[in-house]
Amino acid sequence: MTHVIGVDLGGTKTAAGVVSPAGEVLMSETIPTLNRAGGEAILDATAALIAGLVERAADAGLSVSSVGIGSAGVIDASSGTVVSATDAILGWAGTELVSGLSSRLSLHPSAVRAVNDVHAHALGEAWLGAAAGSSSSLMVAFGTGVGGSFVLDGAPVLGHRFVGGHVGHFASPYAAFDGTPLPCVCGGSGHVEAIASGPAIYESFLRFGGSAVDAADTRDVFALAASEAHDGGATAGSAGDRAAALRAIGVGAAAAGQAVGGLINVLDPETVVISGGLADAGELWWKPMEFALRQELLAPTVSVPVVRATLGNTAAIVGAAKLVLK
Amino acid sequence: MTHVIGVDLGGTKTAAGVVSPAGEVLMSETIPTLNRAGGEAILDATAALIAGLVERAADAGLSVSSVGIGSAGVIDASSGTVVSATDAILGWAGTELVSGLSSRLSLHPSAVRAVNDVHAHALGEAWLGAAAGSSSSLMVAFGTGVGGSFVLDGAPVLGHRFVGGHVGHFASPYAAFDGTPLPCVCGGSGHVEAIASGPAIYESFLRFGGSAVDAADTRDVFALAASEAHDGGATAGSAGDRAAALRAIGVGAAAAGQAVGGLINVLDPETVVISGGLADAGELWWKPMEFALRQELLAPTVSVPVVRATLGNTAAIVGAAKLVLK
Repeated sequence: MTHVIGVDLGGTKTAAGVVSPAGEVLMSETIPTLNRAGGEAILDATAALIAGLVERAADAGLSVSSVGIGSAGVIDASSGTVVSATDAILGWAGTELVSGLSSRLSLHPSAVRAVNDVHAHALGEAWLGAAAGSSSSLMVAFGTGVGGSFVLDGAPVLGHRFVGGHVGHFASPYAAFDGTPLPCVCGGSGHVEAIASGPAIYESFLRFGGSAVDAADTRDVFALAASEAHDGGATAGSAGDRAAALRAIGVGAAAAGQAVGGLINVLDPETVVISGGLADAGELWWKPMEFALRQELLAPTVSVPVVRATLGNTAAIVGAAKLVLK
Repeated sequence: MTHVIGVDLGGTKTAAGVVSPAGEVLMSETIPTLNRAGGEAILDATAALIAGLVERAADAGLSVSSVGIGSAGVIDASSGTVVSATDAILGWAGTELVSGLSSRLSLHPSAVRAVNDVHAHALGEAWLGAAAGSSSSLMVAFGTGVGGSFVLDGAPVLGHRFVGGHVGHFASPYAAFDGTPLPCVCGGSGHVEAIASGPAIYESFLRFGGSAVDAADTRDVFALAASEAHDGGATAGSAGDRAAALRAIGVGAAAAGQAVGGLINVLDPETVVISGGLADAGELWWKPMEFALRQELLAPTVSVPVVRATLGNTAAIVGAAKLVLK
């Protein structure tokens, strides 16, 4: 069996690797995504990245036959085109990802496949990561946004319009303040992402009276929450900051857990994988998340394993590679 | 191709039909489910029902080769056993549905298949009903309870523990009163079913000040809401009743629509089928339901068709038959 290239094309950087049939990433490289330069320039740079890896693989005596891509945006996996994308990558919508890369690389179009990066991420974890060996898994990532994918019998459920897995965009009882649903980046309101994402936790912190001077971002909020309660010289402000930080994290984590718990009742996956920056933020977030999650579960699902993602940054590369590995 | 038997085994009655390869129900029969008599007695009665139909089919020159069953309860579709069930059917949990019926009918166990009745219902609508021709569909039924099933490529997604599709048991912002989540029949609280089911609408009516004297059940609440506003001789109570009825229906319908809209973002089905008694209750429920549903949708899913189920009581029979039709 030949090796393949897996590509993880995100809003800020594009990583690619030579992946063995067993899923090992043997060599990899990362470049900035030319997110202001338009689709054709990105295709040029990505093709060059891939070509360089193919050459390195050849030097090592490895033949590479095909390319799998996980890309930001809504990706039509049938035609290999970018259906829509946010402004994180200008001019990405409409790009013919598969045909553009295959022609640049002189590959047959059938040797190149593309899906959304979250779908690739979930497939990687399902194949070789935290859900390896499970016949179905639900991966939910909590970070800058909230996204996920349900992987069934070795394939991510892409959805009819290729937006399956937008698990950040359903109603959360927590996503309201003073009785008003919080605005969501999708244009809707009251969604899980509006209270459970990293940026949402920072906004909750400010809403709960935390000081923007003492915490500039979500990471600072976690640092404040983890700090020992001040004694003696502490100002009222810093004690209030810590309370606001703890509350913001608690609410975000509870909303996250409640959402995942409800999805477990709907999808009944064998294994649940939690990923993203917040999953890596430690017990402060994980404990209230898992507590809220377990409260939601129907009796037959109470023993569902809920585990942290294990592949880190290589998940999407490995998952993208899996698309084209036989 | 031979005909098959489809069975819909519910808490109060069991219906079965002879189903043609094209999905026509050629002859059918219904008996009360012996829901106090235990699993073996139910199997005896169900086997007799099936045997009678097989005989009638033979009289009409039709050969019947296999049996598909949609049954109340959590059904392990691999082993054909009832994993768990509510007290609606005493002693149903643990019943060996497939082996019990196949031995009674002298059929090979491989000629008998069983799934949960809601899974069968959704499969029927996906095959020949409101979602016919769609590669994926989400069926959600709003009635005594709230249940559903996601059908993908012609098969209901059963779930790893066969509880997939429990769409009534995730958090709804509407399922609270005075800041306290409403109790749900599953033992949890704040779930969609606790505000959007038929009985929940009746409870909302009472909570909103409606009179139990003027409305004894959900049907009466709909009748009150549909009545013309009283003039002249109207009492304050009856005007208050009508307002409570309209509000209870509006809240239940909005919770239903919001829940389905969120699930559309998660699952991205080609077609959405709404079923159950509330779906048949007319515009008073449907309009606020669909309004709330469409408010939730992400841009790529806005054109999703949301349609009323069309097969009525035969949906589960037809879906169960499909399990064993080649």
